[in-house]
This record gives sequence, C-alpha cells and structure tokens, in this order.
Amino acid sequence: MPLLRIALAQINTTVGDLSGNAEKIICYIEMAREKGVELITFPELSLCGYPPEDLLLKHQFLCDCQKALEDIVTKTSGITCILGFPEISESFVYNAAALIHNGNLIGTYRKVLLPNYGVFDEKRYFEPGKEGFVLVLNGVPIGINICEDSWFSEGPAKVEVQKGGARVIANISASPYYAERRKVREQVMRKLARENECFVFYNNLVGGQDELIFDGGSFILDPEGGLLANSIQFDEDMLVFDLEITQDEPSCSENSLMLSDKPSSGEVRMFSISSVVPSQKQKIPEARIRWLDYPEEVYSALVLGVRDYVRKNGFPKVLIGISGGIDSALTAAIAVDALGAEAVVGVTMPSRFSSEGTKEDACFLSDNLGIRLISIPIEHVFNSYLDILKPVFDGMAPDVTEENIQARIRGNLLMSLSNKFGWLVLTTGNKSETAVGYCTLYGDMAGGFAVIKDVTKTMAYKLAEFKNRQAGRPIIPKSIIEREPSAELRPDQKDQDSLPPYDKLDAILRAYIEQDMAYTEILKMGFDGDMVKRVIQMVDRNEYKRRQGPPGIKITPRAFGKDWRLPISNQYTKLYLGSSS
Amino acid sequence: MPLLRIALAQINTTVGDLSGNAEKIICYIEMAREKGVELITFPELSLCGYPPEDLLLKHQFLCDCQKALEDIVTKTSGITCILGFPEISESFVYNAAALIHNGNLIGTYRKVLLPNYGVFDEKRYFEPGKEGFVLVLNGVPIGINICEDSWFSEGPAKVEVQKGGARVIANISASPYYAERRKVREQVMRKLARENECFVFYNNLVGGQDELIFDGGSFILDPEGGLLANSIQFDEDMLVFDLEITQDEPSCSENSLMLSDKPSSGEVRMFSISSVVPSQKQKIPEARIRWLDYPEEVYSALVLGVRDYVRKNGFPKVLIGISGGIDSALTAAIAVDALGAEAVVGVTMPSRFSSEGTKEDACFLSDNLGIRLISIPIEHVFNSYLDILKPVFDGMAPDVTEENIQARIRGNLLMSLSNKFGWLVLTTGNKSETAVGYCTLYGDMAGGFAVIKDVTKTMAYKLAEFKNRQAGRPIIPKSIIEREPSAELRPDQKDQDSLPPYDKLDAILRAYIEQDMAYTEILKMGFDGDMVKRVIQMVDRNEYKRRQGPPGIKITPRAFGKDWRLPISNQYTKLYLGSSS
Repeated sequence: MPLLRIALAQINTTVGDLSGNAEKIICYIEMAREKGVELITFPELSLCGYPPEDLLLKHQFLCDCQKALEDIVTKTSGITCILGFPEISESFVYNAAALIHNGNLIGTYRKVLLPNYGVFDEKRYFEPGKEGFVLVLNGVPIGINICEDSWFSEGPAKVEVQKGGARVIANISASPYYAERRKVREQVMRKLARENECFVFYNNLVGGQDELIFDGGSFILDPEGGLLANSIQFDEDMLVFDLEITQDEPSCSENSLMLSDKPSSGEVRMFSISSVVPSQKQKIPEARIRWLDYPEEVYSALVLGVRDYVRKNGFPKVLIGISGGIDSALTAAIAVDALGAEAVVGVTMPSRFSSEGTKEDACFLSDNLGIRLISIPIEHVFNSYLDILKPVFDGMAPDVTEENIQARIRGNLLMSLSNKFGWLVLTTGNKSETAVGYCTLYGDMAGGFAVIKDVTKTMAYKLAEFKNRQAGRPIIPKSIIEREPSAELRPDQKDQDSLPPYDKLDAILRAYIEQDMAYTEILKMGFDGDMVKRVIQMVDRNEYKRRQGPPGIKITPRAFGKDWRLPISNQYTKLYLGSSS
Repeated sequence: MPLLRIALAQINTTVGDLSGNAEKIICYIEMAREKGVELITFPELSLCGYPPEDLLLKHQFLCDCQKALEDIVTKTSGITCILGFPEISESFVYNAAALIHNGNLIGTYRKVLLPNYGVFDEKRYFEPGKEGFVLVLNGVPIGINICEDSWFSEGPAKVEVQKGGARVIANISASPYYAERRKVREQVMRKLARENECFVFYNNLVGGQDELIFDGGSFILDPEGGLLANSIQFDEDMLVFDLEITQDEPSCSENSLMLSDKPSSGEVRMFSISSVVPSQKQKIPEARIRWLDYPEEVYSALVLGVRDYVRKNGFPKVLIGISGGIDSALTAAIAVDALGAEAVVGVTMPSRFSSEGTKEDACFLSDNLGIRLISIPIEHVFNSYLDILKPVFDGMAPDVTEENIQARIRGNLLMSLSNKFGWLVLTTGNKSETAVGYCTLYGDMAGGFAVIKDVTKTMAYKLAEFKNRQAGRPIIPKSIIEREPSAELRPDQKDQDSLPPYDKLDAILRAYIEQDMAYTEILKMGFDGDMVKRVIQMVDRNEYKRRQGPPGIKITPRAFGKDWRLPISNQYTKLYLGSSS
C-alpha cells in the first residue's frame, strides 16, 4: 500500500512569457514540496503558454524554452515533475513532457496524437512521438499522456498499461473550453480509466489566450471511472492527492519494450525512481468541488476571458459603448466582474433615433455597475457627414448607408478615447448578429476584443438573467431585458424587421454553424424553407465582415475564429440555394 | 515511336462554383477533342476550386462534388482526363485525381504528401493516399502526382517509375504564387525529371482566390530536365503537346505491385488503355513562351488578384481613396489594368494638412488613368469631431488621436460610398506600414481588399516605375514618385519622423518576417541594434491591427495571411528584447 502524494498544478501561463511562466512553475514546485508532494504535474506546453502558434517556427524561441526548462530543473531537489514544453531535437519539434527528478532531467515523453482539426494546428508544428513512457515512482508505474493522446482507445495509454504495466495515466492537457465541455472530457477520461483499469490524473490548463479559454477543472479518477477529486474551474488551483494503490511485483524497470500496436508503434520507455523524501505524512483529505452549472459556467468563462486578454495585453482600463440594449449591458457586467468597476468606462453616444428608454437605461445600468459614463451625442457630427455627402448622394433616398455612418461615428469616437487614454475598446456584438452580418464593420464592430462574439442573442438574455439572479438585484435593468431589440439607427427600427425571431434564428445558426448541417437537413428540423435559405445566405455572404472583426471568446463547439475557415470568394451557396435574394 | 497528344488545361476556377467549374472543364475537354488531344489534365481540386477550406467539412459539398464529377464523366467520349477533385470514400476525404476515359471513371489517385505548413492546412481535411497510380495510355506509362507529391525524392513518383515503369509524371498542381516562385518550381521538377529519368507534365492552376494567386505557367520537361513547352502566366491557357517516346515492352498492366518504400508504402495501381481516336495527325509545334521578368511578374500577379477578387465576389466597381501618394497611385493603376478605367472610382478627401502638391497629383493621376475622381474635403467633419470631443479631452494636447480621427473619417466616407453604390473599397496600405502598424485601424485600413498589402514600400516604387516604363509615359506622375512619403495627418509630417529609412526597414522586415530570423541574426547583417529592436517591437505589438485588416494579395514567401499565425497576447518580444519603449 504505497502512499504517493501527487499535485496537479492548474496554472495560468502567458504565451511567450518564458521567464514569468518559469517563475510561476518554480513557485508551485516550492508550494508542493512544502506539502510533502512527491510528484507534481503541469499542463501541456505550460512552459511557453498554449497555443504558441507560429512562435514555434522561431528557432530562437525553442532554444529559449530549452534554457527556461534547464533553469527549472535546477529547482527540483527532492521532488519529481512532469512539465509540458516544446522540445527541439535534431531539428524536429515535439509537443513534449519533461520528466524531472531531484535536479535531473531524466527523459521526455513526446505527444503521439496531434490534433489538427477545429482550433488545432498541431501538425503544422510538431512531429508525432512514437513511444509511450512509464515512470515508476516508489513502485507505482505511471504512464504519461498529453491531451489528445488519451482521447482514443488506440493511443499510447494502451501500450503503457499493457506492456509497461502502468497503473496510473497522468494526462497533462491544454483543453479549450466550450459550454459543458467538462462533461465530455470527464466521459472520455472515464472510458480511459475503465478500458485500462487505471487511475487517471487529468491536469488541465487554466486561463484565457486570445480567443480560447482553458477552464481548468482538473480531476482524478479511480480505475472504475469514479471521481476522486477535482480542482476549481476558471482559476488557478493546486490539487493535492494521496494515491493509495495495491502494489504488484514491478514488471520491469529502466528498460525498453518493443511494441507492435499503432500509433504507439515504437517502444515504451520506462524509468524507475524513488522519491527522495519518504512518504510518511498525514493523509490529505480528498478535494471535491462543486462543478458550475450551465449559465454560471459560461458567465465565468467570459469573465476569465476578459480579465486575461486585458491583463496579458497590459491595458489599464476598458471602454464600452453603452447603448441601453442587452448586449452592451451584459458586456459591461462581465467587464466589471472581470476587472472591477474602476477599470470600466462606459460611453453613451445618443442620436436622433435613440429613445428616452434606452438613454435612461444606459444611466441606470452604469449606476448599478458603479462605472463612469461619458456622454457624447453624435448629432452634430452625423449632420456634418450628411452635409458633405449631399453633393455625392444627390437626392438619393436614405438607406442602410446613413445607418452605418452613425455606427461608424460611434466607432471613431470610441477609438479616439482609446487612442487618447490607452483604454481597450470592448465590442458588444453577439453571435447571432455576427453570423448574419447584422452589424457595421468599423462601426459597432470596432474594438479590440469581442466579449460576447460567440454568445447567441437568446443566450445573452439567459446570462443577463443569471447575473441578476446571482447579484440578488436587477443590475441589468429589467426594462433592458424586456424591451424589443433595436439597433436604433432609423425611426422605429426593430431587429425583427430584418431578422427572423431570435429563438428560430439561433436554432438555425446552431445547426448550420456548430453542426455543419446542410439546408435540407435543417429543413427537416421543421423550419420554414425560405427562412432557412435566407439565414444561410446571410451567414455565407457576410464572411468578409467576420474576417475583419476583433477576436472574441469561444464558448460553443464552433466559434467564428480558428475553427471556422471559410473562403470569402465562395460561390457554393449560390449553387445549392440559387441566387441570393 | 508512339505519338501521344496531351493537353494541360490551365484553368481559372472559382471556389464552390461546382456547376460553373464543371461547365468550364467540359468546354476545355471539347476544345481539346477538336485538336485531337488524347489525354487532358486539369489542376488539383479544380472541380471545386482551390483552396476550398472548411467547405470540405460539409458532407453535402462533397456529395455535390461527386455529382458534378459524374456529370463530367459522361462528356468524355473519345478522350482521357485527369481531373482534380475532393473524393469522399467511407467517410474519409482525399485530395484526389479522377482518371476518366471515354465516358468511364476508371479510378482515382489520392495525393500522398499533404502539405500542412505555410498557407496549407491539408491535414485538416484529407487522409493521405497510400499508393501510386500508373496509367498506361497507348503504351505510354504515365505516373500521376498531385502537387506536393513531386517535391520530395521519396514521393510516389519513385515507385511509379521504379515499380510501375512510368516514363512520364503528370503532376496536377494548385501551387500558390510568390515572386519568382516559378524558378523554384522548375528547379524542383527538373530534379524530379532527372532523378526518375522521366518526362514531367506540370499543370498548374491559374487565378486569384482571396489572398492567394495561382500563376499558371504550366510546363513540360524532358527526362534531362530540359524545358520543352510552357503556358503563359496569370491567365487561362491550354498547352497542347505531342509526346514522342521510344516504347519499351510494357512491364505490366492492370495489376498491382506490392511495394515497401515509404511514404508510398502501398501499391502502384496500374491501368492500361488505348485512346479511342487513333493518333494520326499533324504534329503540333512546341509552344515556348517568354517567362515574365521580376517586376512585371509581380505587377501581373496583383492585376490578376484584383480582377478575380472583384469578379468572383460580384462587384461592379471599385473605390480607392487617392491621397496623391505612391501607394494609392500604384493601387489605382493596378485596378485600372485589372478592371478598366470605367470600373474604378477615385475619391480625394483633403484636410488642412494636405499639401497643394498631393492635391494636384491626385487629379493628375486620375486624369492619366482616365478614372472618375470624387472630391470630399473632410475639414467640416473633422472640426465637428474636435468640437464634441473637446469636453472629454479637456485641454489635452493633440496627438496621434487626432491623426487617427482624420483617417477614420476618410474610412467612413469611403464605406458610405461603398454602401450607397455597391462598390468595393480597395485599401492602399503597403507591407512596410502594415508590418509596423504605421496605419489606422478602421481608417486607411478600412476596405474589402488590400491590393498591395504584401508589397513593401521599396517594391511599390519599383512597380510604379515599371508601370510608367511599360506605358511609355508617366501614368503615375513623377512628382508622386519623387516626393518624400508623408501621411499628411499633422503639419510637416514625414514617414521618416516615425520610421527608419525604408530601404533599411524593408530589409529588416524581410529578415524578420519572411526568414523568421532572430534579433541577434539580423544584427549580424550590419544594422543598428536599436533600429532592429524597434522594428521587431513594432511588428509584434501591431499584431492586433493586422488581425482586423482586409485580406490582400500574397506575393512574397510569407505574407500577413494564412502563413502568419502569431498570437496577439504574446509576451515573447518583451522577454528577449526587454520592455518595449
């Protein structure tokens, strides 16, 4: 009955900040050592931050990672570490885990299964590893996996268990968030545990990186797939756990086995060590933390996304155009939760088309949130545009042009405050309008970070209601939630003049975007044919707008970001739906 | 001495336009048949256009491609075709070549080597093929390759020749352009011909697709690597060629050979057929066309890029802000060559900072090009912004904020004309300023297509001079070429106040961007350390701007597009250069 004390360090690293990340890793090693931990794991590529993208094409960057790793190795006396880093070896680059023990780098495990779909481009950068690695620590054989490795039955865990005798799989991950992905992840790891009759240590990354959120929520499963312990979601954490395991005869040590299974068609390397500090200590109680429910989980992801984008890019404050509508209200609430009210500035920019209701609500909201609200009416500037364009437009009727001019005046004003004061503009567009192009390029789309870009309109209401429920009072005024949505760019305008009802629109968008369903399949869901056709045409036709939109936080299985790569010049819609109306 | 008449159809297809592309393919088949051609080849994925990107994730799209292919097959009586298309088979997708003969689909070859670097993401979509394919036509064994397949000695050509007896390699490609890439391509194919002692038929795609140009320039090499015939560059062409070859005993036919070489570790499939029309006809003279020289080649690429983006997206006209500087002048000249003067509208938007010289030059240029020039002075609108911002900026000194406001007023005006009249705005930013962020987001960066986005400032001058030389008169006024560059956003502003001299800047940018050289390596080229540091910092810091820029034409080995994937949140520069100034 050996007792092995293990820690899963769920850290928030910054891409490229090798010295900052190394410092954090060393700090966690010290904390773990103080708690009598014998093995500490860190997430996939946590040394350099994930995903480092084309930084991996820079030789200097890889060498600097190597140097940072060497520095960490010297700080590991009395403890064993598994640490994700990019390894360069004979001009090949690997997504690797360094196995470090008591001041020595004893080996590296190289990720075998490289995802190259969705948001992932790992085959752009990495060579696949070819062998498993089993670390036998105090007689406990621990197989190493990196993220994707554990998602398939034929991954390296199989050989690590069958040929290397592993009783535990330690998976270090950088698994991006979308709503309720935690459940998928747990299910996959439960299957891994059961199929291989082994414990699973699942150590996920936490933090926001551009469009991606890593939600943490690391956990430990027993060989039946039962949850033994877990970390919090959306924040740093260190999960310390005492593994009790009945000991077999060690099947082998410090040797290699040739294996024939694919893809781990190479060997299993094994390395046997004993911890320096004998494991005589009081048992740590098992940590069980409540998983967040659906709207709270998404809201927390958005808060973390804003906080990390702002912090990691060094902005002192953010700026939000407050229209009195639901989207800007929700964005502002998220920003305040992420950064504090002091760091959020609202700007209201009313025009002749702004209603008294929305103007008032902008003030109520700002008061409720405790943020500064600057007012800059745009009427004077709008008139000056109409004046100078009169000779060119020469008696033509007003149309969407004049609507867009107003939106772009607001964009220009927000950016001028951004330029003058160094504040980051947060845009407020939701996924429904981004999808169908119901937004103005360089207008309401102008800004550095699109907080609710992947949140549909119907979900925006749910999140607003969650926020009010959580606060125990209507932070987001009830009138904002109840008012019929309008862009207020012409008299009596309503979103529903131009768009299908949002519940229908969002359901069609989900089918078309997230599930890549074809027109005929969506029809079978019971929607009106013309409506489906129009929605698909709008989505396809507005690719050019999205291409120039700011990055925003992914919270669904498919966002308009790295997992959506459609050509702009694309005649396919025309082919199968007929000419666009 | 069999005489095989072959045609390389260098066609310009549109992504997604399956029926239009099929129609074009059938039209070329008919033209070829009339010329007594026995084998016609079409470029990689020409049925669906290249690159189709995430359209390949749509099952319906793949089925529609299959249907379009079946339609083409029925139109091939009396001729043999090799046609690139996306093949779906048992839920795997292949980058395939259909081998069609006299109304029958006789088989498919599947691309073995899938590029997943630079602008390519082929492993995102395709399974690799595992076997070669040799088509024996009239006794001539022809090995099939798709693009990347022929770029490595260990590709499928080796087994097709060594085990399948191929005497010819027919390579169908969609090889994206950058300056003088043709030379690289010819060199690689010459190596292929020599190593395998075979003829090479290299059939490239032509046309613009979003950021990519396919430059055509198909060619035929003899087994010594000598150029026998070639197609024109940057336009459609059909290269007809009579292959004379001494005939060996056919080594095998319609069978399979097991092979052990990697990556073509499978088999070589062979299929032997005879052409329906006996090849008794007058020999076609060999076509030898002059390759374009450097500046003309780049200029032609830009012209094709504009023409195809505008045409494939259905715009009637384009709109260009004419400042009187070199970048907008060059952009306008390219647009006129691409679309005709009737389809190009210039807009001059002078402010208090516009000099008499640039205002005059905008008129001279428009006259020379024969385009309409609309004038909209921005002073009135600029003043209205300053008025309404006065309370907020409250006595703060003017800075880059006020410069950006002017640029964004111009962006708003251009977009309002675009909205009102349905014209596409072409932006005029060059690569040097895009790299260092010497441009205004939503200002001069506002527009649908960035023509010279990948053209450095120094190259812009070369192209302007080429244009004037070619025209035999100064279409781009000499004063534009000779005037010191200025953004004219504050009194007496010059680019060189903010940037290093352009010759130095561009050389540093080339090293850092196109060659991924590190700071220390660039230093060794002899540049001032502070200058190099500043340039790298500006490039890294302005990633957020480029991310929201319009797509533009790639003409260098590395453009700011699909081949440049750097994170926005990125602290690496800070690490190795120290805090940014």
